[in-house]
Amino acid sequence: MKIIVQKYGGSSVADAEKIKNVALKISKKVKEKNKLVVVVSAMGKTTDNLIKLSKEVSKTSIPRELDMLLTTGEQVSASLLAMALNDIGIKSKSLNAFQAKIMTTGDYMQARIKNLKAKRINDLLKENEALIITGFQGITEDDEIKTLGRGGSDTSAVALAAALNAKCEIYSDVAGIYTTDPRLHPGAKKLKYITYDEMLEMSSLGAKVLHSRSVEIAKKFGITIYCGSTFSDEEGSYVMKKNIEQPIVSGLSVMDHQTQVTLSNLPVDNNLVQQIFEKVAREGLNVDMISVISNAGLNISFTIVEEKKSSIAKALNIILKDMKGFNLHYNSGYSKISIVGIGMKSSSGVASRFFKALEKVPLTLVTTSEIKISCLVEEKFKDKAVKALVTAFEL
Amino acid sequence: MKIIVQKYGGSSVADAEKIKNVALKISKKVKEKNKLVVVVSAMGKTTDNLIKLSKEVSKTSIPRELDMLLTTGEQVSASLLAMALNDIGIKSKSLNAFQAKIMTTGDYMQARIKNLKAKRINDLLKENEALIITGFQGITEDDEIKTLGRGGSDTSAVALAAALNAKCEIYSDVAGIYTTDPRLHPGAKKLKYITYDEMLEMSSLGAKVLHSRSVEIAKKFGITIYCGSTFSDEEGSYVMKKNIEQPIVSGLSVMDHQTQVTLSNLPVDNNLVQQIFEKVAREGLNVDMISVISNAGLNISFTIVEEKKSSIAKALNIILKDMKGFNLHYNSGYSKISIVGIGMKSSSGVASRFFKALEKVPLTLVTTSEIKISCLVEEKFKDKAVKALVTAFEL
Repeated sequence: MKIIVQKYGGSSVADAEKIKNVALKISKKVKEKNKLVVVVSAMGKTTDNLIKLSKEVSKTSIPRELDMLLTTGEQVSASLLAMALNDIGIKSKSLNAFQAKIMTTGDYMQARIKNLKAKRINDLLKENEALIITGFQGITEDDEIKTLGRGGSDTSAVALAAALNAKCEIYSDVAGIYTTDPRLHPGAKKLKYITYDEMLEMSSLGAKVLHSRSVEIAKKFGITIYCGSTFSDEEGSYVMKKNIEQPIVSGLSVMDHQTQVTLSNLPVDNNLVQQIFEKVAREGLNVDMISVISNAGLNISFTIVEEKKSSIAKALNIILKDMKGFNLHYNSGYSKISIVGIGMKSSSGVASRFFKALEKVPLTLVTTSEIKISCLVEEKFKDKAVKALVTAFEL
Repeated sequence: MKIIVQKYGGSSVADAEKIKNVALKISKKVKEKNKLVVVVSAMGKTTDNLIKLSKEVSKTSIPRELDMLLTTGEQVSASLLAMALNDIGIKSKSLNAFQAKIMTTGDYMQARIKNLKAKRINDLLKENEALIITGFQGITEDDEIKTLGRGGSDTSAVALAAALNAKCEIYSDVAGIYTTDPRLHPGAKKLKYITYDEMLEMSSLGAKVLHSRSVEIAKKFGITIYCGSTFSDEEGSYVMKKNIEQPIVSGLSVMDHQTQVTLSNLPVDNNLVQQIFEKVAREGLNVDMISVISNAGLNISFTIVEEKKSSIAKALNIILKDMKGFNLHYNSGYSKISIVGIGMKSSSGVASRFFKALEKVPLTLVTTSEIKISCLVEEKFKDKAVKALVTAFEL
């Protein structure tokens, strides 16, 4: 019995016709003697609509109840897909997080899968040809429902593939992984291969192809993820350990609505730096592009998404409440642009090509890692910068 | 700690404003030092819309998956109501059937509550002022989700009240129990009291006030059910052991779309009668107004809802396949009209008043029980018959 784990995103199951189309896609693989475990997202805009409804009802929408609310979306699409499969003669059952025993840990709205009791799924696969699992969600030992964060269904799929020792295929309305977002830049090229590390940099940089936690799990367990289109048979992309083609730069990603936070003239104190980032982490705030320069005084700069500005201000005010003489600035309206490529490690001159390409764009902040260079630019310069980088690195 | 179990129907939680209104109603009882366990139905037309969606996706909509699908409706309304309560300072949590451990037995779409693990609810009530429970659903020992049938949230509420030894209040868009449906007959009178048996006859006759299984459980455990309006403070009705006022006839109910099935000229054989009704019961078909007349030949007549006509025909064809010389007729387009009242038991002349009132209406079939008289009339005579009975019995 060969098991394939597939995942279909929200736009792939957006209406009755699309659900029937997915059922046909699944039935093809079943007829090739595979057993299928299929993870589904909520139909189309369901999650957004539920969030909208919660805002009409409640000002605060406490996370526990928001998770109770949102997880219904996947149960709807999973049961409908199971119906459609049974209709075309594929023996199939839907399972929610309670039934599939997807155990999570951590906070509401950002839980992490802890373990999967694969035995139950394996048992059910003996008497079914396809099991449809609600993505994006898990339960805790004390029966609380938690979600994995937006896009978390990818992570459900990869975790299932790891637990079941199965192939993993992720289908969406995009035919694979592109050098940059093809919806924004029609000239973007599709990659045949991309490594886990490149994909991780891309995901955490805002490329919406895969939930970054899913790539972490794939890397840990050595699962190759195939990303393809639900709506065509066009060959997609593989996320795997080695990039067979090894280009220097594989992709470019853009993240809008960034705020730069700058603290200057603080006393030179490494302990203080640590305290600041510890507090920020404890509050669950993701900061990026951290730059610390210690000279006559200590200067710290980092970026955060604009909507978290008030949360970060609250956290910083607590840490710095007894301190005087420093400056704190928040500058919004920035975009972060990054290029990523495993080939950078072994290739010289990438940074100089990067700066040369952007010589006419004012860069507010630049950070680098072994396989990534990111820069912060005012949003009005974004298109110019992207165009220059796409040309320079043939993306 | 005094516990009140309340149930709010779909029209009471149909939109964000109505959910907030229900939260205020609950908060009043909490401020009077009660702990609340609140059962909710799905919002407005949600269940109908989900059924419609399932029909778009699947021709067969297998019952297991339909139950998976439909139970999401209550989880949506429960989580939204919990959010709204927390917003106004009432500590509250929603629980689905897995979390509340509502154990059921029986078939999909028509399960029965077997037991409720009250300990978990009691524990959670220590740290919460209100628990919101998804109505209409339960789970089995092997984690299957099953629904209790349309209107089953009433049963969830009464079963919870029995398990928690609590008061039970059922709120809807109707201010209580009426002598006949007030939406069809504006002159209907509201009853202050009605006995379990009268309510059971009324429910099984199609009066849509309470799910009949909920009345059975209330009777078994001696729970008084208060039925009132979500939208006004008008005094409602009590379903209880004794009817303090004891009128002769408490109510009238009408059930449309009836088919009369008539078998005539069968061999006189009691065993055959038994076989027929056993087969019909095994197929889950509810027949009513059974009349068996054994003379020169055996004549059997009964009614069934029109939509079950093909199912009954299938069942009868199996039983009668080797028999010859009998006649089998199906006549559709009938309404069943019934009057119910515990007072009939001790009051003579009810039947004669019934026939006198209906002297100008052709009656196709009449059946009686200790507290009920039913007649079958062509649908075109329905209004005339109802009017005559309402006048004769001052309903």
